[in-house]
Amino acid sequence: MIVYFAAGAKAWPEYEAPLTKALAGTGATIVTEAPDPAAVDYIIFAPGGDIEDFTPFTRAKAVLNLWAGVEKIVGNPTLTQPLCRMVDPSLTEGMVEWVTGQVLRFHLGLDRFIARAPHWDQHVPPLARERPVAVLGMGELGAACGQVLAGLNFPVTGWSRTPRDVPGIRCLSGDVGDALDGAQIVVLLLPNTPDTQNVLNAETLARLAPGAAVINPGRGPLIDDDALLAALESGQVAHATLDVFRQEPLPAEHPYWHHPNVTVTPHVAASTRASGVSHSIAENIRRGEAGEPFLHLVDRTRGY
Amino acid sequence: MIVYFAAGAKAWPEYEAPLTKALAGTGATIVTEAPDPAAVDYIIFAPGGDIEDFTPFTRAKAVLNLWAGVEKIVGNPTLTQPLCRMVDPSLTEGMVEWVTGQVLRFHLGLDRFIARAPHWDQHVPPLARERPVAVLGMGELGAACGQVLAGLNFPVTGWSRTPRDVPGIRCLSGDVGDALDGAQIVVLLLPNTPDTQNVLNAETLARLAPGAAVINPGRGPLIDDDALLAALESGQVAHATLDVFRQEPLPAEHPYWHHPNVTVTPHVAASTRASGVSHSIAENIRRGEAGEPFLHLVDRTRGY
Repeated sequence: MIVYFAAGAKAWPEYEAPLTKALAGTGATIVTEAPDPAAVDYIIFAPGGDIEDFTPFTRAKAVLNLWAGVEKIVGNPTLTQPLCRMVDPSLTEGMVEWVTGQVLRFHLGLDRFIARAPHWDQHVPPLARERPVAVLGMGELGAACGQVLAGLNFPVTGWSRTPRDVPGIRCLSGDVGDALDGAQIVVLLLPNTPDTQNVLNAETLARLAPGAAVINPGRGPLIDDDALLAALESGQVAHATLDVFRQEPLPAEHPYWHHPNVTVTPHVAASTRASGVSHSIAENIRRGEAGEPFLHLVDRTRGY
Repeated sequence: MIVYFAAGAKAWPEYEAPLTKALAGTGATIVTEAPDPAAVDYIIFAPGGDIEDFTPFTRAKAVLNLWAGVEKIVGNPTLTQPLCRMVDPSLTEGMVEWVTGQVLRFHLGLDRFIARAPHWDQHVPPLARERPVAVLGMGELGAACGQVLAGLNFPVTGWSRTPRDVPGIRCLSGDVGDALDGAQIVVLLLPNTPDTQNVLNAETLARLAPGAAVINPGRGPLIDDDALLAALESGQVAHATLDVFRQEPLPAEHPYWHHPNVTVTPHVAASTRASGVSHSIAENIRRGEAGEPFLHLVDRTRGY
């Protein structure tokens, strides 16, 4: 059984040891150099990797994406093989940690105390239970983050396109503005689809509480950047912490880098950890070989 | 019914709205200027407030202290009215939020991204489950903080003088160094007693993992300040976030203010919140009017 690591030579050193370990005993041979396409059983893929045209991989039982996002591959017309998203348990853990940390950073005003002149100013923030949070996207990541925030007493409203029911969270679907009404913090964890692009725009930003925080660990195109910059100017948005961007790396001249009320983080909110990812890939290969349904199969009509 | 807010004119702006709301419908009139003492039904008090001599308040049914500590009022010989301590449930909530925020701030390296030059450096921190945390003090605050951190997957070791058993936490007593061994973050939530003073000293700081973080929302005397400054110089401690000090406000010339790897916060980790306090006061006034026993009545023979 041939497993083709087509996620790019740059990624291989990080994955060689954990993938080899995770696939030990499955009979898999991992190859990294372009093999005979017709001999490949599974393709491990990442955007910017080694394959543009999936047509010659006639025998491949699945394309296993290294990343959660599939927007750069799902529209590839040559892709007829089953496509699986990466759902790595460590990815959810990392995202929960990052989102909780950034929410508490804004909530508690932690930045005020860093490298400050001596000044004993006992301003006390409200309690979490007085700070409404909206989480857009109630998939695995959004639901996990929302539940941890609810556990810290934040009143959490979750929004998703299709109705969801997540314990501890007020779940809404339909008009996204209803979920944003009065929220002091909004966390974006929607997938990037034609329906979700610019979900934060002039109109929806106006639904937030004045002086709200925008936290985007989801996808860059979820935000209308000009509308966000205008909301930062007017004070409607007090702070934005952005981890993802339409263009990455974010160009050095982009206003986000230079805005005093914007924190740019370099797409690190939930980085794939090679060990967790390798286990997930091995499990899907095991399922493919056993004739069981793949986990996290992408529905190509919905785009995720 | 006259409620005299005698906790000082400086405190009134913070309490006006929440107290008015909490007492709505009780028939109380809140006054802040020295009224006819004989007409006052309840006194809301704080040390440094408006009353030295309680003798003229012949009708007062209780003195409701704004603070948990009553050591500055309990010995006043003119005080013959019942005296109630403040027990505010929001104190624990506030402490959990502050500790979780500060732990995640260090864990995720959030400061690195604030007001930074454009630099796309995708350094990924370890997961929480790879970051051992020690919590010294397993009282109400320490146990609550430890459990939330354990819920975020941090491996938490708790230490207390008397053996404790807290779900999700490895609880130790005895040699405090055993609890510190290899910890990358230590949180101090011990009370200030002769036994706990300087619990973090040169010897115990050396038990932490190199480059650890010290977070002290407990009491200033828990730390040997000279030993901590030496550990910061050597790199044994990478960062300290300190909320409490031997002298408060921390004097402007203290080295903590000026050390690049020390964050000073002005004793705000768990502050009384006007809303929670107001509810507790309203409940005691309701009890007084209904002839029910007061909550948190001070036993003057014991002093608390």
